[in-house]
Amino acid sequence: MTLMLRVAVGVTALLFAQTVFAAGDPLPSWNDGAAKQRIVNFVKAVTDPTSKDHVTPEERIAVFDNDGTLWSEQPAYFQLLFAIDRVKALAPQHPEWKTTQPFKAALEDDMETLAASGQEGLLELVKASHAGMTPEEFKQIVSDWVATAKHPRFERAYTDLVYQPMLELLSYLRENGFTTFIVSGGGIEFLRAWSNRVYGIPPEQVIGSSIKTKYELQDGEPTLLRLPEVNFINDKTGKPVGINQHIGRRPLAAFGNSDGDLQMLGWTTAGDGRRFGMIVHHTDAEREYAYDRHSSIGRLDKALDMAADNDWVVVDMKTDWNRVFPFQK
Amino acid sequence: MTLMLRVAVGVTALLFAQTVFAAGDPLPSWNDGAAKQRIVNFVKAVTDPTSKDHVTPEERIAVFDNDGTLWSEQPAYFQLLFAIDRVKALAPQHPEWKTTQPFKAALEDDMETLAASGQEGLLELVKASHAGMTPEEFKQIVSDWVATAKHPRFERAYTDLVYQPMLELLSYLRENGFTTFIVSGGGIEFLRAWSNRVYGIPPEQVIGSSIKTKYELQDGEPTLLRLPEVNFINDKTGKPVGINQHIGRRPLAAFGNSDGDLQMLGWTTAGDGRRFGMIVHHTDAEREYAYDRHSSIGRLDKALDMAADNDWVVVDMKTDWNRVFPFQK
Repeated sequence: MTLMLRVAVGVTALLFAQTVFAAGDPLPSWNDGAAKQRIVNFVKAVTDPTSKDHVTPEERIAVFDNDGTLWSEQPAYFQLLFAIDRVKALAPQHPEWKTTQPFKAALEDDMETLAASGQEGLLELVKASHAGMTPEEFKQIVSDWVATAKHPRFERAYTDLVYQPMLELLSYLRENGFTTFIVSGGGIEFLRAWSNRVYGIPPEQVIGSSIKTKYELQDGEPTLLRLPEVNFINDKTGKPVGINQHIGRRPLAAFGNSDGDLQMLGWTTAGDGRRFGMIVHHTDAEREYAYDRHSSIGRLDKALDMAADNDWVVVDMKTDWNRVFPFQK
Repeated sequence: MTLMLRVAVGVTALLFAQTVFAAGDPLPSWNDGAAKQRIVNFVKAVTDPTSKDHVTPEERIAVFDNDGTLWSEQPAYFQLLFAIDRVKALAPQHPEWKTTQPFKAALEDDMETLAASGQEGLLELVKASHAGMTPEEFKQIVSDWVATAKHPRFERAYTDLVYQPMLELLSYLRENGFTTFIVSGGGIEFLRAWSNRVYGIPPEQVIGSSIKTKYELQDGEPTLLRLPEVNFINDKTGKPVGINQHIGRRPLAAFGNSDGDLQMLGWTTAGDGRRFGMIVHHTDAEREYAYDRHSSIGRLDKALDMAADNDWVVVDMKTDWNRVFPFQK
């Protein structure tokens, strides 16, 4: 074959492959129904150049909560379980923790006392377990934990407990020119250690809560040091603030699962033109967990009441998803 | 023509166009010399898959200071001139400014008194002129100013005073798989109002100093409000901190022009593997400005001393650039 013919054949094969893909279902783990249809309708509306709702790719910003939206958050936020494991690992250097709360509770897996210690108690654990090292060192600690720790119920790596339908949704949006961001109440550097591998979301597209970091020279070497001091809480009213700080524009679509996502959903869908808001409702105790208004983790109460008025899609995990985790067939 | 032949012709045209471009000089405003050669050598080393210095595109992060590195900063930081114009526009609502510093100095174009008021005085101007509106409203105010204000010496829009060689460098890096970020001591939202149009750098790739933003409901509408309160100063030791917060990894290459970029340059080039640091030295009073160790704006003193030891490229604007601004031929 001449070069030109070979190129022609190659291009034709490529075009054919794309046609086949386009004909396939990009969201196979979503049952046909209102939720799936509304996702597809929204994406078509904003990407079709002839649509009145069309927007350029650079405006196609989609933001995703993480805990309970992209991966599980039961029986406790996975990052809390990481912090407890870290406290246990560091305990030999801190004999005083045996008698000081919330460390005593962490060492004894006393989740009730931990929960009762509230946000302040949890921040104490975070400060003790997440600070005092460089970002690179912290990343390594998280990576090691993710590679070895197992979820108590599913006995699998925590990063296996991501939702297959949401992975498909992330890919579907990206294939349609969207940039996907994580906007989590969880720690920004905790997420960045594995978000690219697991979600295809690189570090610069992760927004989260943070502790302060300090630049200093260590033996003449420029270094960043993580400090036991809160920098920013990226939750509730903090989510729109964090989005604006990192992205500099209002998203086109927002995905959450709890009242912590209410302001993010509200600010996103109050923007001009066509917008999209979605709530993952945990209704499947068998395949995952069932909880909403009365859960201390991922409480979904006000946001559920507001969904109808704001035209947010509420996904019923049990009926809308034919598969929850990648390892469940 | 058959479809296949038409595709073949199209592809051949495309390949030909790329070949022509590759044969052309991507940095035509750079004179042949050590600076240009070192840029090209670095890019080849990290992009050539057979090179021991090769890194994947996702690690190709390049960070650029703005004032004095991408656009001029004389006779004063352009954002300060914007703040002064805002203070003048708002003065009718603030009769007390006629007798209060630093506002009196701003209203009277008394740059000496303004400079003497130091960082604190300048922050007073910023708080009075940059807060009290939504990010969208602020963006509009900046856009209007950029469209109408003129530089006192060159009598052109401030966004015309960008450096042609640096625009070429931004494009050259992006064509080689780099993601380009602005890392400025200037205001993040001020820069975002025009960075995409002028530099091809979208809002989410702009890092800068910021004031605090607050989420609130205004008549039931979710809204962000800019507050007259400093959030973060992205200068000197703040630059590595800001980079880590926004990008989540150490850059591969850093470009600056003053001692405010010293820590960013140091932290970047102290990373493992091949790195690149560059300083733009303002040596051309005729085409632009000449200043370094004794300038109150963009002082380049310690960083100039450290350049040789750290192997940073020092660009001599006068001899390394055959063109400074796009409008100068």
